[in-house]
Amino acid sequence: MGDWTVQNPGTIAVAGASGYAGGEILRLLLGHPAYVRGELSIGALTAGGNTGTTLGEHHAHLLPLADRVLTATTIDELAGHDVVFLGLPHGNSAEIANALPDSTVIIDCGADFRLTDAAAWEKYYGTAHAGTWPYGLPELPGARERLTGATRIAVPGCYPTAASLAMAPAIAAGIVEPRVNVVAVSGTSGAGKALKPNLLGSEVMGSVSAYGVGGVHRHTPEIRQNLSAISDTEVTVSFTPVLAPMPRGILATCTAPTTVTADEARAVYEKAYADEPFVHLLPEGRYPTTGSVLGSNVAVIGLTVDTEAGLLVVISAIDNLTKGTAGGAVQSMNLALGFTETDGLSTVGLAP
Amino acid sequence: MGDWTVQNPGTIAVAGASGYAGGEILRLLLGHPAYVRGELSIGALTAGGNTGTTLGEHHAHLLPLADRVLTATTIDELAGHDVVFLGLPHGNSAEIANALPDSTVIIDCGADFRLTDAAAWEKYYGTAHAGTWPYGLPELPGARERLTGATRIAVPGCYPTAASLAMAPAIAAGIVEPRVNVVAVSGTSGAGKALKPNLLGSEVMGSVSAYGVGGVHRHTPEIRQNLSAISDTEVTVSFTPVLAPMPRGILATCTAPTTVTADEARAVYEKAYADEPFVHLLPEGRYPTTGSVLGSNVAVIGLTVDTEAGLLVVISAIDNLTKGTAGGAVQSMNLALGFTETDGLSTVGLAP
Amino acid sequence: MGDWTVQNPGTIAVAGASGYAGGEILRLLLGHPAYVRGELSIGALTAGGNTGTTLGEHHAHLLPLADRVLTATTIDELAGHDVVFLGLPHGNSAEIANALPDSTVIIDCGADFRLTDAAAWEKYYGTAHAGTWPYGLPELPGARERLTGATRIAVPGCYPTAASLAMAPAIAAGIVEPRVNVVAVSGTSGAGKALKPNLLGSEVMGSVSAYGVGGVHRHTPEIRQNLSAISDTEVTVSFTPVLAPMPRGILATCTAPTTVTADEARAVYEKAYADEPFVHLLPEGRYPTTGSVLGSNVAVIGLTVDTEAGLLVVISAIDNLTKGTAGGAVQSMNLALGFTETDGLSTVGLAP
Amino acid sequence: MGDWTVQNPGTIAVAGASGYAGGEILRLLLGHPAYVRGELSIGALTAGGNTGTTLGEHHAHLLPLADRVLTATTIDELAGHDVVFLGLPHGNSAEIANALPDSTVIIDCGADFRLTDAAAWEKYYGTAHAGTWPYGLPELPGARERLTGATRIAVPGCYPTAASLAMAPAIAAGIVEPRVNVVAVSGTSGAGKALKPNLLGSEVMGSVSAYGVGGVHRHTPEIRQNLSAISDTEVTVSFTPVLAPMPRGILATCTAPTTVTADEARAVYEKAYADEPFVHLLPEGRYPTTGSVLGSNVAVIGLTVDTEAGLLVVISAIDNLTKGTAGGAVQSMNLALGFTETDGLSTVGLAP
Repeated sequence: MGDWTVQNPGTIAVAGASGYAGGEILRLLLGHPAYVRGELSIGALTAGGNTGTTLGEHHAHLLPLADRVLTATTIDELAGHDVVFLGLPHGNSAEIANALPDSTVIIDCGADFRLTDAAAWEKYYGTAHAGTWPYGLPELPGARERLTGATRIAVPGCYPTAASLAMAPAIAAGIVEPRVNVVAVSGTSGAGKALKPNLLGSEVMGSVSAYGVGGVHRHTPEIRQNLSAISDTEVTVSFTPVLAPMPRGILATCTAPTTVTADEARAVYEKAYADEPFVHLLPEGRYPTTGSVLGSNVAVIGLTVDTEAGLLVVISAIDNLTKGTAGGAVQSMNLALGFTETDGLSTVGLAP
Repeated sequence: MGDWTVQNPGTIAVAGASGYAGGEILRLLLGHPAYVRGELSIGALTAGGNTGTTLGEHHAHLLPLADRVLTATTIDELAGHDVVFLGLPHGNSAEIANALPDSTVIIDCGADFRLTDAAAWEKYYGTAHAGTWPYGLPELPGARERLTGATRIAVPGCYPTAASLAMAPAIAAGIVEPRVNVVAVSGTSGAGKALKPNLLGSEVMGSVSAYGVGGVHRHTPEIRQNLSAISDTEVTVSFTPVLAPMPRGILATCTAPTTVTADEARAVYEKAYADEPFVHLLPEGRYPTTGSVLGSNVAVIGLTVDTEAGLLVVISAIDNLTKGTAGGAVQSMNLALGFTETDGLSTVGLAP
Repeated sequence: MGDWTVQNPGTIAVAGASGYAGGEILRLLLGHPAYVRGELSIGALTAGGNTGTTLGEHHAHLLPLADRVLTATTIDELAGHDVVFLGLPHGNSAEIANALPDSTVIIDCGADFRLTDAAAWEKYYGTAHAGTWPYGLPELPGARERLTGATRIAVPGCYPTAASLAMAPAIAAGIVEPRVNVVAVSGTSGAGKALKPNLLGSEVMGSVSAYGVGGVHRHTPEIRQNLSAISDTEVTVSFTPVLAPMPRGILATCTAPTTVTADEARAVYEKAYADEPFVHLLPEGRYPTTGSVLGSNVAVIGLTVDTEAGLLVVISAIDNLTKGTAGGAVQSMNLALGFTETDGLSTVGLAP
Repeated sequence: MGDWTVQNPGTIAVAGASGYAGGEILRLLLGHPAYVRGELSIGALTAGGNTGTTLGEHHAHLLPLADRVLTATTIDELAGHDVVFLGLPHGNSAEIANALPDSTVIIDCGADFRLTDAAAWEKYYGTAHAGTWPYGLPELPGARERLTGATRIAVPGCYPTAASLAMAPAIAAGIVEPRVNVVAVSGTSGAGKALKPNLLGSEVMGSVSAYGVGGVHRHTPEIRQNLSAISDTEVTVSFTPVLAPMPRGILATCTAPTTVTADEARAVYEKAYADEPFVHLLPEGRYPTTGSVLGSNVAVIGLTVDTEAGLLVVISAIDNLTKGTAGGAVQSMNLALGFTETDGLSTVGLAP
């Protein structure tokens, strides 16, 4: 963390400011205590095709920045900032990262630097692997330490955030077999602002759809990586994403074979998350609803054991744009810069 | 089937006409060819607390019947009809069924006569087991024969319809291990018109929730029964229902361990459903959306094999009120009465 | 009407079959008695950019036509049909209409031939006026006669259908001053499948928006024309459209100054619509909901007089794609071809 | 404002804490700087039928207060607090207010003390008029002064907030005739948590409905009062509320006859709202969407003149629970207690 003051604030650039990730980062920054105090300032807001338009045309909810004009996403525009958030299409981050100084804190909301396995990257993304950065999910074992003071951070995918938080304690404690099944229902903002017919309001309202079925979704290797890293053996992951008619939220239903009781499983989770400010374990018999975490940075988790089926069943709910993207990014930024980890992040959702 | 004519039509009563199942049965009957020709007529429409009100107050969409007054659900009101549909709370059907003549075709949309296992009934429903009737899912092996000419029919639950159609071919062909995992997302009409806070529009819109987690949902033993009946060995079923912000529709994601290829699995399904008018198998790489089956009696199915996870993944979509309840009931009625099985049932949905 | 038989059926082409209007026309035709009997057949299905794809890729709900391949919208493709529905962008209909024989029944769901006033056309649409065809709203005074046997039909806009049916009786009877205020809330399918950011599901869900404010919406002159044609004096119309988070439906709140009582106004409406199969007048104190007319061809109307404000208040609800577009088109086709006017059109909606 | 410190904080009670107004007040208080600093504390949370349950059962989004137990709404429970928010059914506030000391700041979210005209109260609410308190809409002429240091505050209704902010500048400046037409579309939370069939998710999703048509809605006299108070002559108001399928938000379309130009009207509004932190005037040609103000305390306004119809058209959007209820309440509390008016209230919404 620099010695930033109101007179000499740290500056933040957001590349991809007209997208949903960019907008959510800005929403959170506008409420960040260091921004409110004037010790952080918002610098360049850049875009691709939307260059030259105002932020208000894309994010009418960000009134304090409504008149800010978007500039082009170039090295020149991003240079000179202390912190740069990247909300770009996959594959575009490496070039920018390489051109900026090592001291710049770069926080990439894209996938480029998430995977450690180059082969998995190439299989799922089809381009050359750019590398691996510290992974911005502080609740995973060892992650918080790697993020503290980091200058390069790979923000996790939204589904991997929900699924990894749901299953990590069980996998790490070895109370389940390493075969995880994830069916995760997501709101539409996870697909971004891409102009595709299947994302039109007329199509998504009143309907749910499965897509990326059979292990082909790009978040599959990321979930596998997170869980395998804390397991004695390689974890297999079956992942099915489902699109639901709501703008935000992910509800992940995760199962794995177990022989422990529900109480034993609960004890494992209580211990794992006892000190986590952004994981909330529900009491026995209660399960989460995504409506309770909209705009909040919390993952709410409910769990039980289905004794007849022999499965641990864990349900987790997050806001895909907050804890699943921009909130995780700001939480990681706080660790990187030495702020209090919870600064600017709420445990209170907007409901109903 | 009686010798019904325009001069002497068969008469149909609907008990529970103000509920969603009752309303959907009436919607379908109004378009049934025998009703349109005048060979079937709609007689008593009965209710519980809504007795004395008009149907139009509860189902504004059923304009041709808007002024019909609901009478009390009693034996006297239901007696004298050729066909009686029951859309009553669980546990209320047996008394009525026992009091009506054996020749009356009784089609129960409740759960009372679905389960063969009295112990399972008592565990999940908490009352004495009333018996078992022919199960109204004609697509299951042997079911069509049992329904033809039947005078007592147990309409399947909505989730069991979606899950059983998804997994029956694989189980019957023995291409999967008998361990099935079902995560099914449903619209809110599946919960009926119960006035519960969690079903208020303000609560359900913009949110998805898991409930009945861990094998406690009452449809669990029904799915298990359907699949075990066509399997060499007992099938275990893990079932997690999820409530989504839409009025209608169920999307079931079903998995089971397999060693066959996707092509082999597809061949099994193509053979199983080749002649079924109300099951539509999507081509490779496509998966269903509930929005395409609203108001239609079709189950749309997409499938693949996740080779890394070693799982067959089958996605099925139905309208919970049509194929999942009232459509299945009318399809069974057609078999019971000797009508063409598809009469009054559409393969075309209302979209968008 | 031709002498069409199963051996020699009338043929229907739909231009713009991948759009919402085209899809809804096909949904209705699939249930039309003459199609079911085999006396009408569905011929060419044409498209613009979607040429070469199957209908199933765009309208998964139209299963019986899922494998039909879309051909290009050209004169050659459309020639040789008895009936041609046009669901094309505004301005594209005239060229096609001119090239087809006078005996072909052409039913244009676009705006091209709706307006009688060339100046109004040019002001609102910016191109040369193509002409005026019989207007496909049979419930307006004189319209049914003009549509009977017609070979060219201009299908009304969705908002004008809702607003004109709401206010026509009062204007024709002279019980209101000719100053009409319309605020109409519409589902998103009214905007078609245009890939615009503001029509993305993430944007429209959970939000309502006003647009086309201040008399600039293109349906304004059409409403004015309809009401002025049955009034002694020119009617002024203020029209504000509002986009709501639902796929279908229009609810129009229409007011005009009056001095009559609610009972007097009701009597006027009862008389005007006594014999109309597709207009349903609600009893005193009840008002429509769009949810009751989804997929039905009915306009439901409720009305009262606000005595303190001195206004007649009429609320009308339609399905914008059915009565507001494709249903009105099929109703007009029935009149043009000599079928029963209600053939293939339902008064029963799909709810909930 | 008391001399509150971390050691001796001011205490706040919320009566009706399990309702939507109560929940939103608590959401805002949890983020209020004085609460965050520890100078305000949250005391009794009371309820009616929900007494004895935890807050978390009703408001899962308010995690920091999830374990707080609701006590009964009695004088004893509410006594001893410095500030008491009332979120009770209409007619229940007077008895409580009379029993609490004059020095207690009572902020009533119910209607009891809004109207000055006892006859209007009795006509619309059917009980004896309890009195009139300072009206919590600081943006109205003179209101801010009356609220500063007040100990009794009547929080405005949600529709009156939207409609009054939309039309007050025009009425006060005399640029319109005093005949105002308001059609306002609202999310369902405005109806509270009442367990009514028409508020079930299955009923409201996919549908819009008009209700309270013809001047009978209770907010009609409140809008009339607000506008008449700043007009030379009595203002007549036609008000039609419309229920839309979304949890939050109001979009009000307001018109009144005018002869001024759009530019002249805009100048009036710019002047009226130049210094208001919670009113945002959109540039020419842009109109608000409720999705941009979710959770924010801002009213966004767009306006134009329909010259053909001779009407000023003003569209306003608010969050009915924030600016329309709890946000207005907290803004008024800030004035009453001497805090900065904007404390704890955001101009940034949660979108998408």
